[in-house]
Amino acid sequence: MATEAEQLPLVLILRPFPYIPSFQEKFSNRFRTLKGTDLSMPVNEFLIKECQSVKALVCGAKFAHTKDILDCLPSLGCIVLNCVGLDNIDLDECKKRGIVIGNAGTVYSEDVADLAIGLLIDVLRRISSGHQFVRSGLWPINKEFPLGSKLSGKRVGILGLGSIGSEVAKRLVAFNCIISYTSRNKKPSVPFPYYSNVVDLASNNDILILTCDLNKETFHIVNKDVMSALGKKGIIINVGRGPLVDEKEMVRLLVQGKIGGAELFELDNVVLAAHIAWKTVESTSALHELVISNLEAFFSNKPLLSLVKYD
Amino acid sequence: MATEAEQLPLVLILRPFPYIPSFQEKFSNRFRTLKGTDLSMPVNEFLIKECQSVKALVCGAKFAHTKDILDCLPSLGCIVLNCVGLDNIDLDECKKRGIVIGNAGTVYSEDVADLAIGLLIDVLRRISSGHQFVRSGLWPINKEFPLGSKLSGKRVGILGLGSIGSEVAKRLVAFNCIISYTSRNKKPSVPFPYYSNVVDLASNNDILILTCDLNKETFHIVNKDVMSALGKKGIIINVGRGPLVDEKEMVRLLVQGKIGGAELFELDNVVLAAHIAWKTVESTSALHELVISNLEAFFSNKPLLSLVKYD
Repeated sequence: MATEAEQLPLVLILRPFPYIPSFQEKFSNRFRTLKGTDLSMPVNEFLIKECQSVKALVCGAKFAHTKDILDCLPSLGCIVLNCVGLDNIDLDECKKRGIVIGNAGTVYSEDVADLAIGLLIDVLRRISSGHQFVRSGLWPINKEFPLGSKLSGKRVGILGLGSIGSEVAKRLVAFNCIISYTSRNKKPSVPFPYYSNVVDLASNNDILILTCDLNKETFHIVNKDVMSALGKKGIIINVGRGPLVDEKEMVRLLVQGKIGGAELFELDNVVLAAHIAWKTVESTSALHELVISNLEAFFSNKPLLSLVKYD
Repeated sequence: MATEAEQLPLVLILRPFPYIPSFQEKFSNRFRTLKGTDLSMPVNEFLIKECQSVKALVCGAKFAHTKDILDCLPSLGCIVLNCVGLDNIDLDECKKRGIVIGNAGTVYSEDVADLAIGLLIDVLRRISSGHQFVRSGLWPINKEFPLGSKLSGKRVGILGLGSIGSEVAKRLVAFNCIISYTSRNKKPSVPFPYYSNVVDLASNNDILILTCDLNKETFHIVNKDVMSALGKKGIIINVGRGPLVDEKEMVRLLVQGKIGGAELFELDNVVLAAHIAWKTVESTSALHELVISNLEAFFSNKPLLSLVKYD
């Protein structure tokens, strides 16, 4: 007879989870786990050898769910992501196989919006470069630190007014910014002006904030034309995936002074962040709860709490 | 006969002004200036020798208007500050002599409030230390950067709910923060809870934001007791004068991990800023306009636009 633990539903873990130790017990009381995080063999081989009965898996943004991988997991019915973006998942293949997908939903939206505002103030007011200036001991010697620029009154264009973009807009209203946006479609309930294309949005704004998904339509959506339209005082804040921006082009324009600020190496008008927009103690706990609830829902034949609707 | 320029009212300049070149003409069309910014003799000697007829002067925060200095300026009727704080001015002596004072008024309030929010997000989300982490090349080697903390939902106590404090509160509401404050007196029109002392404010909050004036009552208002009450996860954002905080004590508590974050040297949980809270291109222009208008008002026997009421 199987022990109680052996009767728990099996979950394949393709990224260390739970990574908050206090969730370990809660997780292991509910699920058996099969770890594919630190393999001594090629992943396809492991999947074919060990995972033929796996119905659900937990993974992060970087694991590519290609047709090849999905072919190795014939029983798979559910993918639970600890991120929001679906850019590494072959959605057509998932649809064919009837695989349901749960992502991180909106647990990160406030944190990402907060960081977008923080980065924006940082770039405008030169907080990070000022911090380096003072820390390097330059302040007493070279008294004049270049003037920053005011946030209040600036025109801010938001790319993608979803959950994160809406939180960004809400915050910017309190800073007296003038807000407009673009998205796949105009949103009837939103009071801000809508632009149907990104070049027009850039032409009419001082700042662009990128909060949209990365997909085929949005790859390099901020290209040379958009950056030129934004102009040489323009500022780009990308809290979405890197490839939303043609970064080679952006670096060229930053170096030449043809846009004002962004986030990249070796330039004083640039702030760098180590993919932390979504990462706080609080949101990480919320994510753990959500992943567990999504898996419980799947194994109880209920809809996932943060079911991704894709077509 | 005096030339037209010689008939213009005389203004003593004790700090370089205008420091935006485009204002030079506007200023010199209205006033004759006597520069005391780069003296080859002691300031008292210069004042006695050259400034006996000076009725108005422009200066910054650092010039100390002591009784001794005022004794050297028998004709002085008006001090125009390019800052907000009055901490270097002997107000009793000014009152005795009937000297009117104009300060920077509210031209900086939005910028200071913006920077307070920027510094707060920076400390909570470790933007400056993350920027250094990525720039130093550590990210690819040491993937794990410590988790930040969420702003939304945090309890924020504001010290001094004046023009700047009110702008800070307005912004924090949009971040879903829980706000309370202390000030000399409870403000009847304000919806946030009031604490009559700073220790109670600190006990009941995660974050303290200092926006009050520096004066005898507020010198070291954030002392050891306040910092202990705030606790070891507590964060202090000081956009007022440095001596509002007992900084020696703060450094000791930061090093010992007894408070969570603030703004000082050599610590990763600290963000430094080179006295830039008020400094943007836009607010600096607004200041220049205000200084000129204050001087014009004084010489036309009208009330200053940003008259400081002191008693």
